[in-house]
Amino acid sequence: MKYTDYVDLNYRPAKSDLVCEFYVEPAKGVSMKKATGAVASESSIGTWTTITKAPPRINKLGARVFLIKGNYVKIAYPFELFELGNMPQILSSIAGNIFGMKDIANLRLEDIKWPYQLMKSFEGPKYGIKGIRKILKIPKRPLIGTIVKPKVGLNSKEHAKVAYESWIGGLDLVKMDENLTSLKFNKFGKNVRESLKMRRKAEKETGEKKIYVPNVTAETTEMLRRARLVKKEGGRCVMIDIITVGWSALQTLRNENLNLILHGHRAGHAMMTRNPKHGISMLVIADIARLIGIDQLHIGTIVGKMAGERQEVTHISEEIEKKFVKERPVGHTLAESWGNIKPVFVICSGGIHPGHIPRIVKFLGKDIILQFGGGCHGHPNGTFSGAKAINQALCATMQNIPLKKCAKTHPELKMAIDKWGVVK
Amino acid sequence: MKYTDYVDLNYRPAKSDLVCEFYVEPAKGVSMKKATGAVASESSIGTWTTITKAPPRINKLGARVFLIKGNYVKIAYPFELFELGNMPQILSSIAGNIFGMKDIANLRLEDIKWPYQLMKSFEGPKYGIKGIRKILKIPKRPLIGTIVKPKVGLNSKEHAKVAYESWIGGLDLVKMDENLTSLKFNKFGKNVRESLKMRRKAEKETGEKKIYVPNVTAETTEMLRRARLVKKEGGRCVMIDIITVGWSALQTLRNENLNLILHGHRAGHAMMTRNPKHGISMLVIADIARLIGIDQLHIGTIVGKMAGERQEVTHISEEIEKKFVKERPVGHTLAESWGNIKPVFVICSGGIHPGHIPRIVKFLGKDIILQFGGGCHGHPNGTFSGAKAINQALCATMQNIPLKKCAKTHPELKMAIDKWGVVK
Repeated sequence: MKYTDYVDLNYRPAKSDLVCEFYVEPAKGVSMKKATGAVASESSIGTWTTITKAPPRINKLGARVFLIKGNYVKIAYPFELFELGNMPQILSSIAGNIFGMKDIANLRLEDIKWPYQLMKSFEGPKYGIKGIRKILKIPKRPLIGTIVKPKVGLNSKEHAKVAYESWIGGLDLVKMDENLTSLKFNKFGKNVRESLKMRRKAEKETGEKKIYVPNVTAETTEMLRRARLVKKEGGRCVMIDIITVGWSALQTLRNENLNLILHGHRAGHAMMTRNPKHGISMLVIADIARLIGIDQLHIGTIVGKMAGERQEVTHISEEIEKKFVKERPVGHTLAESWGNIKPVFVICSGGIHPGHIPRIVKFLGKDIILQFGGGCHGHPNGTFSGAKAINQALCATMQNIPLKKCAKTHPELKMAIDKWGVVK
Repeated sequence: MKYTDYVDLNYRPAKSDLVCEFYVEPAKGVSMKKATGAVASESSIGTWTTITKAPPRINKLGARVFLIKGNYVKIAYPFELFELGNMPQILSSIAGNIFGMKDIANLRLEDIKWPYQLMKSFEGPKYGIKGIRKILKIPKRPLIGTIVKPKVGLNSKEHAKVAYESWIGGLDLVKMDENLTSLKFNKFGKNVRESLKMRRKAEKETGEKKIYVPNVTAETTEMLRRARLVKKEGGRCVMIDIITVGWSALQTLRNENLNLILHGHRAGHAMMTRNPKHGISMLVIADIARLIGIDQLHIGTIVGKMAGERQEVTHISEEIEKKFVKERPVGHTLAESWGNIKPVFVICSGGIHPGHIPRIVKFLGKDIILQFGGGCHGHPNGTFSGAKAINQALCATMQNIPLKKCAKTHPELKMAIDKWGVVK
């Protein structure tokens, strides 16, 4: 089969097909038909030349380009090309060699539609939005949390003290930084024990449930050992840097079924998601994380220190929170019916402060986790006041009270706003 | 600390520092000093705002920008920022959030220099070049191998037959495709048993040692189960798709110490390596693979269907094959002293045919594995003749005989050249 034989614009995808949407720019002098055919070929059964003794029955396993609209292309893959429950194998096909082919100048995987058979071979989130809300006994409002800062350098007692002040200041979650796992000055085991002791103290004093999020990012065996330690010490949640750890280990952690909330950090995603013409979209990463079983996932903020457009973040939030996702006419979202795969709690984090809360809630709704680093511990009076200011800003937002009005009677919020302002 | 406080052009890196070279393009209106300082800050101890009660001793853990030359920047990181033997943690720091920061327009991690302390916390290759040559009893010439084609669709007996024909045609290695793991029509266990049976038969008939490379890419537990099966059945090597599996599982496989050659496929790398201004270089990926312990790694071809410039491939080849790597004045290579970490056998694969052999050997030398897919099985007379043609082209190249001359007395090579030509 020639590359162009993989293009069949009359083909209608079968229910069992996996469908990908790509952005494609052919290399100079290469037609769109040839370039997209090359992508379909290389990601299914083909190669750069004809194979002499290939049995003709194999052609039925070829992927088909069934839609070309400007630079956007849809390709359908027969279900038989994929191993059930093996995410790395699936990605080696549909997100593998194709990014390096000479026939294309740029290629971006925008979205994946999973056939039901393949979908049900993955676990999905254990808890998702409802499960996490139940643990915390918070039925409706956004959750608020913090990342302990400075990122690294505190010892375990200092770290636990910052966590404690955050919790009694009114925050629901406290997480370790993605750079901190087990360092010389702050070893994992001691960190977890100290922090969970402080969590219990904070729970007793506030009468509220709290969550500590230790980062178990490591080689798989060590990662599992740490996750089991968290479980044993009474923890409810672990965090994993899903990109730097990789899909294989993430599946292993989920399959281990430790009944821990899995918090997905996305450090490193932007090396492949940021270029709008090449790589893979954050939507796809979020999609995969939902399928494997992340309960709460960083997706960007609309505002703050990380790049991430409003439309992109909104689309991702819909993709991983809804049961049915509608197809969009232009722009990178295929329809999806998520079956029994639970919705993921989206996390907004990265350079946000209390003055951002009304805007983020306006655009993303209440099923979000707002997570502050510098925007908490950078409060002029420190962590405890920072946490209070965040809580005050959230209460005001829930009651439709402008932050500046609320600040008149809440000195912590006033100081935060004086430092960082309110973002409309 | 402000972002610009992380720039100290008078700083000279300590021997224990980890050093990174980045390509940096600041966002519009942002100075180079601020942009590079932001990168150093976010990847070490800083955040977007000042932290009120941070102990001053922590500032010593900050990374330092010590060189800015055009868009190239070198940053030194104190050793204490990293956990020994935890590659995902290291990358969450130096290749994490920084790619998404608003202060930068483009950012590419070009190279990493590992301090000895950190280096020795990783295993490195078990075999490397010398070990693999010893197993095959081939002291000097390049190794030749093939990927069974069509990629997927053959059953295990058909697959093993293609492997057998390749071996008796004169090839040293036969590998599964990166898309094939365990599919409905070709299950892993049966594939391995059939292929190893054929390997033994080919070894008996040729009197040569041969290697089969089954792809164990999967969730970690399943991956290890498959690797142990290969070992039990008498295999010598397993392959892993290092990008789609991820660093955590790769470390686990290496640490398991099964005495199998680890063959690293790089499917998916180009989603982050291809853009020369953003992401991560293939050199860095190869560097990490060597450190963790891949014995043989795909690095590109100079020629063929995959993009990859000659200079880039040559640099990567030097980086992972040498004991001492010299610093280059311009362009992306830091000095490196590899200590006890063994050299990796580089694999050239992707769209190559017999007519490419002289050119690749000329530029990359004899310590390479040449691996053909379509360039073997696309031979007009099929696999056996394809393998013979490759062998003939290699023999001619080793004796400095032009391929066209050799083809006069070797009909298989002649047919290959008639189909694909000779590339100068």
